[in-house]
Amino acid sequence: MALDVIGRAVPKRDGAEKVTGRTRYLHDLALPRMAHGKILRARHPHARIVRIDTARAAALPGVLAVLTGADAPPHRFGFVRDQPALKAGVVRCVRDEVAAVAAERADIAEEALALIEVEYAELPAVFDPLEALRPGAPLVHEDRPGNLTDLRYQFGHGDVEGALAEAAVVVDGEFRLNFVTPACLGTMVAVADWDADGRLTMWSTTQVPFLYQRDLAHALGIGGDRVRVIQPPVGGNFGRGLDLYPIDVIAALLARRARRPVKIEFERVEEFVACPTREPCRIRLRTAAAADGRLLARDCHVVIDNGAYVSWGSTTPYVMLATVAGLYRVPAVRFDTTIAYTNNPYSGSMRGYGNLESTFAVESQMDEVADRLGLDRLELRRRNATRPGDANPQGFTITSCAMGACLEAVAEDVRGALPAPAPGWRRGVGYAGMFHVAGGARIYRSDGCGAIVRLDDFGKVSLVTGATEIGQGSETVLAMIVAETLGVPLERVEVVNSDTAVKPWDVGVHASRTTFIAGNAARLAAEKLRARLLEMASEELEAPAEALAVRDGWVFVRETPARRIPYDRAARAGHLREGGQTLVAEAFYDPPTAMLDKDLRGNVSAAYGFAAQAVVLDVEAATGVIRVRRVVSAHDVGRALNPPAAEGQIHGGIHMGLGYALSERLVVEEGQVLTASFMDYAVLKAADMPELRVRFVESVDAEGPFGAKGLGESGVIPVSAAVANAVHDAIGVRFRELPITPAAVHAALAAREAA
Amino acid sequence: MALDVIGRAVPKRDGAEKVTGRTRYLHDLALPRMAHGKILRARHPHARIVRIDTARAAALPGVLAVLTGADAPPHRFGFVRDQPALKAGVVRCVRDEVAAVAAERADIAEEALALIEVEYAELPAVFDPLEALRPGAPLVHEDRPGNLTDLRYQFGHGDVEGALAEAAVVVDGEFRLNFVTPACLGTMVAVADWDADGRLTMWSTTQVPFLYQRDLAHALGIGGDRVRVIQPPVGGNFGRGLDLYPIDVIAALLARRARRPVKIEFERVEEFVACPTREPCRIRLRTAAAADGRLLARDCHVVIDNGAYVSWGSTTPYVMLATVAGLYRVPAVRFDTTIAYTNNPYSGSMRGYGNLESTFAVESQMDEVADRLGLDRLELRRRNATRPGDANPQGFTITSCAMGACLEAVAEDVRGALPAPAPGWRRGVGYAGMFHVAGGARIYRSDGCGAIVRLDDFGKVSLVTGATEIGQGSETVLAMIVAETLGVPLERVEVVNSDTAVKPWDVGVHASRTTFIAGNAARLAAEKLRARLLEMASEELEAPAEALAVRDGWVFVRETPARRIPYDRAARAGHLREGGQTLVAEAFYDPPTAMLDKDLRGNVSAAYGFAAQAVVLDVEAATGVIRVRRVVSAHDVGRALNPPAAEGQIHGGIHMGLGYALSERLVVEEGQVLTASFMDYAVLKAADMPELRVRFVESVDAEGPFGAKGLGESGVIPVSAAVANAVHDAIGVRFRELPITPAAVHAALAAREAA
Repeated sequence: MALDVIGRAVPKRDGAEKVTGRTRYLHDLALPRMAHGKILRARHPHARIVRIDTARAAALPGVLAVLTGADAPPHRFGFVRDQPALKAGVVRCVRDEVAAVAAERADIAEEALALIEVEYAELPAVFDPLEALRPGAPLVHEDRPGNLTDLRYQFGHGDVEGALAEAAVVVDGEFRLNFVTPACLGTMVAVADWDADGRLTMWSTTQVPFLYQRDLAHALGIGGDRVRVIQPPVGGNFGRGLDLYPIDVIAALLARRARRPVKIEFERVEEFVACPTREPCRIRLRTAAAADGRLLARDCHVVIDNGAYVSWGSTTPYVMLATVAGLYRVPAVRFDTTIAYTNNPYSGSMRGYGNLESTFAVESQMDEVADRLGLDRLELRRRNATRPGDANPQGFTITSCAMGACLEAVAEDVRGALPAPAPGWRRGVGYAGMFHVAGGARIYRSDGCGAIVRLDDFGKVSLVTGATEIGQGSETVLAMIVAETLGVPLERVEVVNSDTAVKPWDVGVHASRTTFIAGNAARLAAEKLRARLLEMASEELEAPAEALAVRDGWVFVRETPARRIPYDRAARAGHLREGGQTLVAEAFYDPPTAMLDKDLRGNVSAAYGFAAQAVVLDVEAATGVIRVRRVVSAHDVGRALNPPAAEGQIHGGIHMGLGYALSERLVVEEGQVLTASFMDYAVLKAADMPELRVRFVESVDAEGPFGAKGLGESGVIPVSAAVANAVHDAIGVRFRELPITPAAVHAALAAREAA
Repeated sequence: MALDVIGRAVPKRDGAEKVTGRTRYLHDLALPRMAHGKILRARHPHARIVRIDTARAAALPGVLAVLTGADAPPHRFGFVRDQPALKAGVVRCVRDEVAAVAAERADIAEEALALIEVEYAELPAVFDPLEALRPGAPLVHEDRPGNLTDLRYQFGHGDVEGALAEAAVVVDGEFRLNFVTPACLGTMVAVADWDADGRLTMWSTTQVPFLYQRDLAHALGIGGDRVRVIQPPVGGNFGRGLDLYPIDVIAALLARRARRPVKIEFERVEEFVACPTREPCRIRLRTAAAADGRLLARDCHVVIDNGAYVSWGSTTPYVMLATVAGLYRVPAVRFDTTIAYTNNPYSGSMRGYGNLESTFAVESQMDEVADRLGLDRLELRRRNATRPGDANPQGFTITSCAMGACLEAVAEDVRGALPAPAPGWRRGVGYAGMFHVAGGARIYRSDGCGAIVRLDDFGKVSLVTGATEIGQGSETVLAMIVAETLGVPLERVEVVNSDTAVKPWDVGVHASRTTFIAGNAARLAAEKLRARLLEMASEELEAPAEALAVRDGWVFVRETPARRIPYDRAARAGHLREGGQTLVAEAFYDPPTAMLDKDLRGNVSAAYGFAAQAVVLDVEAATGVIRVRRVVSAHDVGRALNPPAAEGQIHGGIHMGLGYALSERLVVEEGQVLTASFMDYAVLKAADMPELRVRFVESVDAEGPFGAKGLGESGVIPVSAAVANAVHDAIGVRFRELPITPAAVHAALAAREAA
């Protein structure tokens, strides 16, 4: 099939607006009569609220509403509905919201917060999940003896004990992952507006608008049909928008009380405290292999620091398991979890969602196995690589798969001249592979997306998609899919995607699913529309619709292509007449997948993505400084629909992965968030970035739109493992905790020296 | 058919927001970086621009852009594309735009206007259409010898001359209609915003968004696919939004030049000058009747004061003809027009659109005929009343028709106690009938409207309609149609209608067409969706879809209604599963009508509306003051879908009609608009309104949605004729010019006294 639009390098549609500063983010939204809300948070990570007095705040001129836990509706929300929007009685982490104010201006609201008097009685607190499990540990929730959440992920397949006993080598280690935060340049914002009939419009940074609609309605005690969600452009999200948060509920409550639209916008310091993080965890992993390198078993136990409330972040073992069971062929797998409440801030979803953590463990041990067996590290991976047709222990059905080709591509691209390391620096090369869902992820009963395509008299095509754009480029790629399917010029296609009142249903943007799922929905709707367009043109061209095709804006007779008319003329001819018709078509795509059952078996995705990375870095022994020189990243993306955009996703992922590996850490001590600015939180700057070599291996997936598979997360996932492996290659030290900071390297080298 | 929602009294959806001051009109819109535009207009009605110097204005701090005719694109626009957005060389009326400024604030833009130096050389001007036709008259357009427009409406049917010769009575008169203006409480506004890729978003008071999109794009020299039109709530329109105007083009030009969003908002005085008016005209009419009152012929010639440019207002004879040929049975008709340029401001479309003017003439002569023949005035109308199955001289096919019943209802309702007129006052009763399109009006090749209906997991139904809400209540009635068709509670239906990027095509709101056309589209889409909902429910209810029905929110088995599930549960069950589906359906309705051919024959509407009114009023002979005591209005509306909203339309129409009859006049002298405020322009206040008695006669139209026909204009149309007839009944004076002011009455009585 010759493709006209797909595979072309197309600038992202939001690009020009963003780089010229013209994008109107939610931060820029101002509604008539809009008030400004601010939230007062807990002073202590665990305390009883003895007294709260809002009288002085309420009396401040310009204050429109003051709310405390006593005013909030009784409906709890969150992943297991364990938190109210405003806390009464007890606070369980420093993020806890104890009061909120709406005022004419943000500075008045801020001033009012300072006038709210809260008297606390501190309670003993617990900040470590294993300590939380000890008998006698302080209880985060009084009704939760032992501090255990209800979540547990247990999986078993094959004879793990036998494999461990018989293996030529068993490597064993515990990996520790700390708090990181998405550090979105656009902080969280919520704007709430009730109409006179009690209908609520929310402008939100959510990335799951329909789940948000459902959850917010529940939290407010109203029907989901009374909530409309509008999603202006966001400055980053990366999973942050997967849960409903108190900011959203509080904005709605303040607006209801003040009878005015209310906007709550986090300042940077508040974003560090209140934005959900990647969850901290400890992964105990054992990997068993035969003498020829064949993997025999993995045995894994994950301990999650759940923080004070359960969120989507608490469910990351769901994905960790998929990696433990699915990254390379492994016949026997055991997996278990401990997810314990602490008085730390709770986490959320963040790009890669558990897979960075487990890939860090799994791929670190791949190197350890190779080293112990005296095998080449890439060769070990080749021997265990997943192949098309595999079914993994969970029952995931592998269709298109180019894992082997990715490993070859990385081996090839990592070569090539680099300046030799400076004196005192040692060079290392590290590898890591990646396995992730790439055709949706059926974690909800529907994994579908709807699309409506309309072609007007001007030849403009509107795609109204359920999909959510959070900067990943979905608008652009969906427009390309429609343009290709319809055979019309790309610039005639417009994408509408930000209003739940008009867009069809979609789960939301997560799990690298948008190109695949929303892309298929758009393609199906466009195919229906194309059929109707050809019917319309049939009369003009005096040929049956079956004999017609449309390409590059022309409807033509296949056999005699000179018999042609512009597609928009065909549309007008069909419309602007007595008994005319217009061109609107809709479709819904729900992938052919199966949710995991209670034993965590199923086939959650209609396609799976594979990748391999190599990292070349230099380590200065004297200082522990690590300088990454090159990252090579080869990805089985099915087909790269918009290659530079796909590459941009990988670049962004590598940037985030390198930060995770080397520099980023949200410092939380005794439950307090100490990181307060980008001076403290070391996101890598452009100048810190190494040479990047990205390669796409096109396996052309049979189910994906034009063969594409998802890739939004695949760049970030293997980076930290490849970095750790490269550091080990350079200096012989195995790091099992991130980030690998100069101080950590220096200390490890000093310790080895001392030993 | 039992109806659950249709026919119920449902409050208008925008009502609560509007009366509590919460509606966000276009006036309230503020975009980040938005600049404010102002327009400099011609000082003289006809002049050459000798010099225009914008240097001082451009130098004023805060000024962002200054444009004159030299900067405007060459594309002319308007009904016959005879005007540029900014005039260069010659100005032809005082509305003419000679320069425009965008500035940081509106007051700066206003100040800048005062700094623009324009030197004019005045040209001889012409303000009367008949004078404009005289040889040697000043030419409004140099390329238009004789000042004639290209428009002429000529129609002939039957033997008019023969009828005139044989008639028992022929009445003859000339009727004069003056400038009136819609006097919308919300003035005209345009906000233009270009994105970085050259796509334009317009927030507009237009009521024909897709035609506006086309015309604005043409005026700017860009493709229609590059324009998106958003229609926030408007404070009245009444036809004002049927043309594209310079305000729209200038806002877009300023925004393009300033590289900022630009808002132009008329102040009240500017609204009086620049808002299109109802066109002034003279109607020469002759009516011939037999001795028994049977009408034999009408002969009509209309002279239109076209003003300086051609607009939709210039085409009103199209509708005048329909009245002359169609209001009552009349076998022979002759109709001709003269439409001449003058240096007056040009008109536009206004509610009733020619029909007020021609009904004023036709119904005045009905009374004259009755009086001359000594027949009862109502009886004369009864004898000539149109009946179902009639085809009129133009070929209009009359289907449902309750004209006779309307006359009876008026005869009945006009009775009843009223305090006797005070001493010195004389009472009169006047009647008038009405004939108007009520099932669309095919004046454009498509008279269709599209609809998309979506039912979500929350049981919320969204109707995305092409229709435009301008306060007439279409959102409410379309929601009712969808709720009734789907069998779901009305409050679960939301209507989305204000963005051309998402809504399907529609001609726009005019010609009382929305309930009929958009209502049928909504009904068709809802029927499709209902069929799919029943299929979904079929599995749950273990019965074939054909055996199911849905009503009041329940899907049930027809034979055993206790077997039922809530409709939203059926939708969720069909969606939240592997291989799920969602409910979206679309439809397009184009009525079975035929455009008028070159001989003005055809069948423009799928249904026609009929009404009769009676006015009871008292006239004080000494002062000429008229006090209207009662207006009775009986309407064949097919079916009143939302009776109080329908009644509200009639009330509003009577209010506007009484203003037209008695008090409203935009004073234009020597081309200058002298009316500058509501102190000068006498819109009737609530306290001025008489008792209103509205009756709906339900003829249940076979094509209309649930039997409905359009009624948006029918209240206003007959009022002035009924008033004039009542005044004649009271004091024996026939007024053939509006408004019938106390001064006019007093002068007429004085003249009669003198004679």
